[in-house]
Amino acid sequence: MKIPQAFPVTHPMRIELVHGAGGRASAQLIDQVFMRAFDNPLLQQKNDQARFDVTSNRLVMTTDAHVVSPLFFPGGDIGSLAVHGTLNDIAMAGAEPLYLAVSFILEEGLLLSDLTRIVASMARASKAAGVPIVTGDTKVVERGKADGVFITTSAIGTVPEGVNLSADRARPGDQILLSGTIGDHGVAILSARDSLGFSSPTRSDSAALDGLVKQMVSQVPTIRCMRDPTRGGLATALNEICQQSGVGMLIDEQAVTIDPAVQSACELLGLDPYYLANEGKLIAICPAPEADRLLANMRAHPLGQGATRIGVVTADPQAMVELQTAFGGIRLLDWLNGDPLPRIC
Amino acid sequence: MKIPQAFPVTHPMRIELVHGAGGRASAQLIDQVFMRAFDNPLLQQKNDQARFDVTSNRLVMTTDAHVVSPLFFPGGDIGSLAVHGTLNDIAMAGAEPLYLAVSFILEEGLLLSDLTRIVASMARASKAAGVPIVTGDTKVVERGKADGVFITTSAIGTVPEGVNLSADRARPGDQILLSGTIGDHGVAILSARDSLGFSSPTRSDSAALDGLVKQMVSQVPTIRCMRDPTRGGLATALNEICQQSGVGMLIDEQAVTIDPAVQSACELLGLDPYYLANEGKLIAICPAPEADRLLANMRAHPLGQGATRIGVVTADPQAMVELQTAFGGIRLLDWLNGDPLPRIC
Repeated sequence: MKIPQAFPVTHPMRIELVHGAGGRASAQLIDQVFMRAFDNPLLQQKNDQARFDVTSNRLVMTTDAHVVSPLFFPGGDIGSLAVHGTLNDIAMAGAEPLYLAVSFILEEGLLLSDLTRIVASMARASKAAGVPIVTGDTKVVERGKADGVFITTSAIGTVPEGVNLSADRARPGDQILLSGTIGDHGVAILSARDSLGFSSPTRSDSAALDGLVKQMVSQVPTIRCMRDPTRGGLATALNEICQQSGVGMLIDEQAVTIDPAVQSACELLGLDPYYLANEGKLIAICPAPEADRLLANMRAHPLGQGATRIGVVTADPQAMVELQTAFGGIRLLDWLNGDPLPRIC
Repeated sequence: MKIPQAFPVTHPMRIELVHGAGGRASAQLIDQVFMRAFDNPLLQQKNDQARFDVTSNRLVMTTDAHVVSPLFFPGGDIGSLAVHGTLNDIAMAGAEPLYLAVSFILEEGLLLSDLTRIVASMARASKAAGVPIVTGDTKVVERGKADGVFITTSAIGTVPEGVNLSADRARPGDQILLSGTIGDHGVAILSARDSLGFSSPTRSDSAALDGLVKQMVSQVPTIRCMRDPTRGGLATALNEICQQSGVGMLIDEQAVTIDPAVQSACELLGLDPYYLANEGKLIAICPAPEADRLLANMRAHPLGQGATRIGVVTADPQAMVELQTAFGGIRLLDWLNGDPLPRIC
């Protein structure tokens, strides 16, 4: 039985509650928007789950809700961000992402053109990474009960033999590398918020890091841990590792690179770039003897060109992150307290 | 560094934007609410992904967003529903669920006591099924930008050797079995909506079907396909199978059991129980020679006691589902058109 067009004539076409009811209109939305963009054989199974074989038994699994506001921003949108963010959580285990699953919560009244643009962006990000979206779900809530669209992306991946990354594995003496500048995503989102009356040339660094990570772990499998400094920024990600490993860190402020436009936006708005979100950067911690080789390896990849060695892991039962400032002083780099920037991802 | 209490003194305690910022307050929420309830070694890894080994390479993966309103209803709540719904999508492949991942989207102002109650319910459902929640994510959006809490649950599972279920495998002559009554979940949700001024003794049938399915596929591995008739109800699930398999169906109205309280609620409200959601029922289609054995097998399980043989798969290139009524007539059982009941799951 052929299913007729879901969105025949009305203009502008908008999502309605009926698109979430699980009946004919839902099937039409799935066929005409999601299937068309994400097209792949596993999704075409059209079951409520995707069925596939894996060749390794060493798996990782992750999930992330995305509620970024606004939906579109310089350097990306909620769709590309939802794919990149989840691929990166898989990659931070040193793993190769295999498959993505995606759940949409749509607000009644969402423009179909916005949804289609977001879905196209997800499809591009998924195809660029070679990681198909194999199963999904869509719900619709009444106008005023959501904010356009929320996207939860989940993924599984496989961890190569010999790779064992975990944030509890940092040891005193280890070196801390960072793949590039910080704060770009946070400033890009801020500049896209009309209400702030603030503009910046900064674009989000949103990117899939799995290619960079694959190169890193294949040459330096002894990496202790990696983490992407998203919400809470570099400062919070470093604190998380310290707490999990029971170590301290000494970070060299001069080695942490910040784009001049990000720096000036932070000064203007009174924000600290160490607490701003990044969506295409990673922290890698490795034994000191491997640090030079790992740094060179990172710099050889387009997403790690700006990599620097930013500090060293110290023995500190208090698990403090200390920052050696450009003026030679030391200040405590605490966890993020409060929220400078809600709905950044 | 010991993390102090996230919710020290204020009453009533509510979720604030800062709990979604990824900093100290987020860590406190995770430790004091989620970790405490879901406690297991994989979650305790505290990485942005869970790392585990699987013993079979035949995997399935699924994801489902849950936006049910109200959050609490007779027979369950959004937490138990989010676990059951996703376990059931894994089970419908004949698979055994292994691990759950969960993403929360919380509305600023949500009562902490409501969140804690929902999380406790998820933990109970997860423990009862023996499927741990191994990774997760939490976002918070401003008051009025969500509706209390939305939960997206994802899962992976393994498919036993020799089991190959898919909704495109129904063949003419196959028998169609249904595990119990229909419409209970839909009516329970309706009765929980104050605005309708309607009450019913009906409780949701929300339940995890993986135990029933494991018993079914171990004794009758030749089952063609299973589907849980959730949104869109029995009528829509049958139509989906017909469309995917390119077959028709003839359903015997007298074999489809409906609880008297559900029947009377449907008459009162002008609803058709064939289109109401179920959250603890399954349709199973098998070759005719296996049907008696499969039916007996289902009836031997507490969640399949009310199983009946409801019809037969027919050769029909139009992929129509026909209902033989109690009066001997035939009516078309179409896909759900429109939405009798938004936010049912």
